[in-house]
Amino acid sequence: MARRRQLYEGKAKILFEGPEPGTLVQYFKDDATAFNAQKKGTITGKGVLNNRISEYLMMKLAEIGIPTHFIRRLNMREQLIREVEIIPLEIVIRNVAAGSLATRLGIQEGTRLPRSILEYYYKNDALGDPMVSEEHITCFGWAATQDLDDMVALALRVNDFLTGLFLGVGITLVDFKLEFGRLYENDEMRIVLADEISPDNCRLWDVHTGEKMDKDRFRRDLGKVEEGYQEVAKRLGILPEAGVRDMKGPETVQ
Amino acid sequence: MARRRQLYEGKAKILFEGPEPGTLVQYFKDDATAFNAQKKGTITGKGVLNNRISEYLMMKLAEIGIPTHFIRRLNMREQLIREVEIIPLEIVIRNVAAGSLATRLGIQEGTRLPRSILEYYYKNDALGDPMVSEEHITCFGWAATQDLDDMVALALRVNDFLTGLFLGVGITLVDFKLEFGRLYENDEMRIVLADEISPDNCRLWDVHTGEKMDKDRFRRDLGKVEEGYQEVAKRLGILPEAGVRDMKGPETVQ
Ligand SMILES: Nc1ncnc2c1ncn2[C@@H]1O[C@H](COP(=O)(O)OP(=O)(O)O)[C@@H](O)[C@H]1O
Ligand SMILES: Nc1ncnc2c1ncn2[C@@H]1O[C@H](COP(=O)(O)OP(=O)(O)O)[C@@H](O)[C@H]1O
Ligand SMILES: [Mg+2]
Ligand SMILES: [Mg+2]
Repeated sequence: MARRRQLYEGKAKILFEGPEPGTLVQYFKDDATAFNAQKKGTITGKGVLNNRISEYLMMKLAEIGIPTHFIRRLNMREQLIREVEIIPLEIVIRNVAAGSLATRLGIQEGTRLPRSILEYYYKNDALGDPMVSEEHITCFGWAATQDLDDMVALALRVNDFLTGLFLGVGITLVDFKLEFGRLYENDEMRIVLADEISPDNCRLWDVHTGEKMDKDRFRRDLGKVEEGYQEVAKRLGILPEAGVRDMKGPETVQ
Repeated sequence: MARRRQLYEGKAKILFEGPEPGTLVQYFKDDATAFNAQKKGTITGKGVLNNRISEYLMMKLAEIGIPTHFIRRLNMREQLIREVEIIPLEIVIRNVAAGSLATRLGIQEGTRLPRSILEYYYKNDALGDPMVSEEHITCFGWAATQDLDDMVALALRVNDFLTGLFLGVGITLVDFKLEFGRLYENDEMRIVLADEISPDNCRLWDVHTGEKMDKDRFRRDLGKVEEGYQEVAKRLGILPEAGVRDMKGPETVQ
């Protein structure tokens, strides 16, 4: 198969031109970065797992009526998606204090928040993804008020559904990050969920032991990083059939 | 312990005066009825299981910010609840066609609906719980438009969360019925989730086999009714520790 034209290489994924206009191929790498790419590493098999986990979660979200960019998984590391105009915001929802919220506001990590908190970050690596408010967003035109309303409503629904789903498999959804984009179809614009949902951008703790099964294992050098991601897939009932053996190194696939 | 004053005996539960003003004790019976009480029977252990399942689901819903009447479970068959002014409506949400929707509209049972459908029924046994619209509800003063807005918003959140939770344990949430009430506190009124959430008022199908784990086993004489309810509790990880042995007959407890 002829190699598709590469459009963008990010920290965790590569985007290729898709087979049809308006589509892209999203390739999941094993590369891991943290602290605004100051820390770099490889998590063997991460790309395969995230491709599968994101497929599963986006499909289930679509079933409850959340519009997403996901079309279908192509192979172990690639999925076909609809090309969207990415809104340069990271929408973070937090149910339990952790990470930057715990640090910045001096709240003990693990404290359940009185209610879910939604935060916006301006997606800009050079600036270190600064936190912003609706004031900044509308002032600088990153999103219109209507776009924001749609994103917030969708993000809250995603939180309700995923909180339930993860609880069902014994996992607390502590917090997560979403990206949205504008999809233009027949002169109409819709806000759809884009990028990925995976242990790279969710904090996932075992309900009983509190054990972390997400990128904090990498950020904080806790070891057993791949095992954490694998455990999430296993609990969701979607561990790739081929198993871990086939998940080694991207070089054979790329 | 002195026996509390009985206030109401319904088809599946008995309400007793609670220990403090504004509270009630909700006792879960093994009695089962269907088709507007034309069919009657007993499902051994149902009361114990529904008490536990409803406790668990209401607690988890409270954690995501859904206000409920639930205070705490008292024993195997009783739970302490806040007394509310029940709104005489059954709010039904359907994700998959089944039961009366399938029959009335000629849709094959098991067909996933293009989007979730919300229905209102007027809670009145003598009339057979007729289906009603917002027009009827506001015209006859059963609920104000603002009450309805609150109930719909809450019911949709409950659907998102429970759909996720049940999916996590391998169960499709086909449809379910909710009741809401008005809670008066310090001159303020809030709409809160009341009654129960259990296999008595949810349709729950195994994701893979489609096997029913709800009251349809009783309605349709499918057998293994208690086993269906038990399986739901087991998958949620809350099968009463004492096990089935202690769940027999209400007479020893009442
Ligand atoms: N459907 C889509 N259409 C266009 N761009 C997308 C879509 N989904 C995600 N993206 C973008 O593709 C990139 C995915 O690669 P990633 O490694 O996450 O990049 P980054 O380092 O910029 O976060 C991100 O920049 C993301 O915003
Ligand atoms: N928190 C509450 N306060 C007052 N009444 C309630 C509350 N929760 C449920 N109820 C009512 O208590 C009764 C529960 O018993 P049930 O056997 O379900 O009765 P029914 O046969 O009327 O459906 C129902 O009528 C229900 O509307
Ligand atoms: Mg990214
Ligand atoms: Mg009832």
